[in-house]
Amino acid sequence: MELGMIGLGKMGNFMAQRLIKAGHRVVGFDPGPDARKALEAKGGATVESLQALVAALKAPRALWSMVPSGAITEQTVNQLATLLDADDVVIDGGNSNYKDSMRHAQNLSAKKIHFVDCGTSGGVWGLAEGYSMMVGGDEDVVERLRPIFEALAPAKDQGWGRVGPCGSGHFTKMVHNGIEYGLMQAYAEGFAVLGHKQEFQLDLEQVAQIWRFGSVVRSWLLDLTADALQKNPTLEGIAPYVVDSGEGRWTVAEAIDLDVPAPVITTALIERLRSRDKDSFTDKLLSAMRNEFGGHAMKKE
Amino acid sequence: MELGMIGLGKMGNFMAQRLIKAGHRVVGFDPGPDARKALEAKGGATVESLQALVAALKAPRALWSMVPSGAITEQTVNQLATLLDADDVVIDGGNSNYKDSMRHAQNLSAKKIHFVDCGTSGGVWGLAEGYSMMVGGDEDVVERLRPIFEALAPAKDQGWGRVGPCGSGHFTKMVHNGIEYGLMQAYAEGFAVLGHKQEFQLDLEQVAQIWRFGSVVRSWLLDLTADALQKNPTLEGIAPYVVDSGEGRWTVAEAIDLDVPAPVITTALIERLRSRDKDSFTDKLLSAMRNEFGGHAMKKE
Repeated sequence: MELGMIGLGKMGNFMAQRLIKAGHRVVGFDPGPDARKALEAKGGATVESLQALVAALKAPRALWSMVPSGAITEQTVNQLATLLDADDVVIDGGNSNYKDSMRHAQNLSAKKIHFVDCGTSGGVWGLAEGYSMMVGGDEDVVERLRPIFEALAPAKDQGWGRVGPCGSGHFTKMVHNGIEYGLMQAYAEGFAVLGHKQEFQLDLEQVAQIWRFGSVVRSWLLDLTADALQKNPTLEGIAPYVVDSGEGRWTVAEAIDLDVPAPVITTALIERLRSRDKDSFTDKLLSAMRNEFGGHAMKKE
Repeated sequence: MELGMIGLGKMGNFMAQRLIKAGHRVVGFDPGPDARKALEAKGGATVESLQALVAALKAPRALWSMVPSGAITEQTVNQLATLLDADDVVIDGGNSNYKDSMRHAQNLSAKKIHFVDCGTSGGVWGLAEGYSMMVGGDEDVVERLRPIFEALAPAKDQGWGRVGPCGSGHFTKMVHNGIEYGLMQAYAEGFAVLGHKQEFQLDLEQVAQIWRFGSVVRSWLLDLTADALQKNPTLEGIAPYVVDSGEGRWTVAEAIDLDVPAPVITTALIERLRSRDKDSFTDKLLSAMRNEFGGHAMKKE
């Protein structure tokens, strides 16, 4: 079928390529000429504006937004609301907050434009291995898009599904990312313990490689960990500074709202915050308190 | 080659079967007649005592102990010390504390008996899929046992390796299990959040199945989670009570000894303790304190 792809960064570009390979017609839009050229080089048509994208597609249209969540997604959806016709579909494949997605669905429905939220996992590996997609939206609308999901997924009937109404796709992806925080932190802590056991002089890459086959902790994240340790066994040049892009904190807030204890996911998020707090007021105050009650020496800066 | 297998429970029995299939001669010992019969049914020879096992093997012997860690392993190794000859090898494939293993290696070395500690992962799936093995011991001794490890592993050169001297195999397996606690807890918390989101009525098994293909959180533990949710979607009849068998608490103690913060692994362990504390003094005292300072109502038993 025919799809407009909005946002031709790594994710949007790779997804467009995977769809083209599967025989779909993809027209891509990105404000950046380099991003457009990258898709053109892979046989994709591109346009220079959202208006031109809408004009290039036959109604009822399907437009996939693969732009950063937050302000840019907001702006894109609002602009599409003014450009599209009834029965067109907007798919948000980014990491939007599910509450934003529910609001977008509501707003677009006033004009009878459909909205589908698709939580998309797989990162830069998706082009080769396919994407895992958690889809929220009306059943008949999702069904209409089936050829697109089947082409993007690792296999026609694997790695994707409609999980519920609008919002449920991004909700499920949010929790997926919260779990990811916990898994990553568990591996990282374990390798840190192994690495600090001086007397055994363990080869961390070797351990990761052993665990990849037959062990209970084998996973795709472990495969990537082994790869990272193979390239850079001492992690030289990497700052101990971990960014978060929102889904972890949303998961923690949601868990609290639902009265569900999620201590490991919460701790994994907090460890990321801590990694960025190089001048911890808490640690200074703890040191000062020890000095107050016990006269313990304080390490000076 | 020839191996004596001590302990014919699920792990020992399955490992013996995998070795027999690969063409090795295995003589099994277990005090229980049913365990012996189970191996005999699969073509394995068995004996009724450790003495008989030692007598049934040609020197230099290799004996694999696959019995519960702690007292029974201790007793087995001590008995073997009186029965074996110089240059024989004892392999402890169980989940022993690495400090015990270092002590066993030391004690046996006085009689020139070799000791190898093998952290073994894979559980009941190992028979079909092979075991992941982290091996500690002298290089030449481990090399002598290579055919055994190659047969037990998922493939000759995959899923096993000598990671260092005596003790390092069980140390590595201990940390493997600590990581496992964190991974399991992260998945469990995420599925709990999904399940509590009433408005989306998510099908947890469906979500697990979607994630198995192409997602960042795909893993063998997720495969097992999907399987568990498929068999029992509401986890009916399962008490919210989680046992631990030592490796998690050893990992946490070791992390503290090494000054390595491991908050997620620690929290995962603590959550297991909490699952077993159905009459929490802490929770009662918190409730009492709220009542003291704020007159807040206390829920009565």
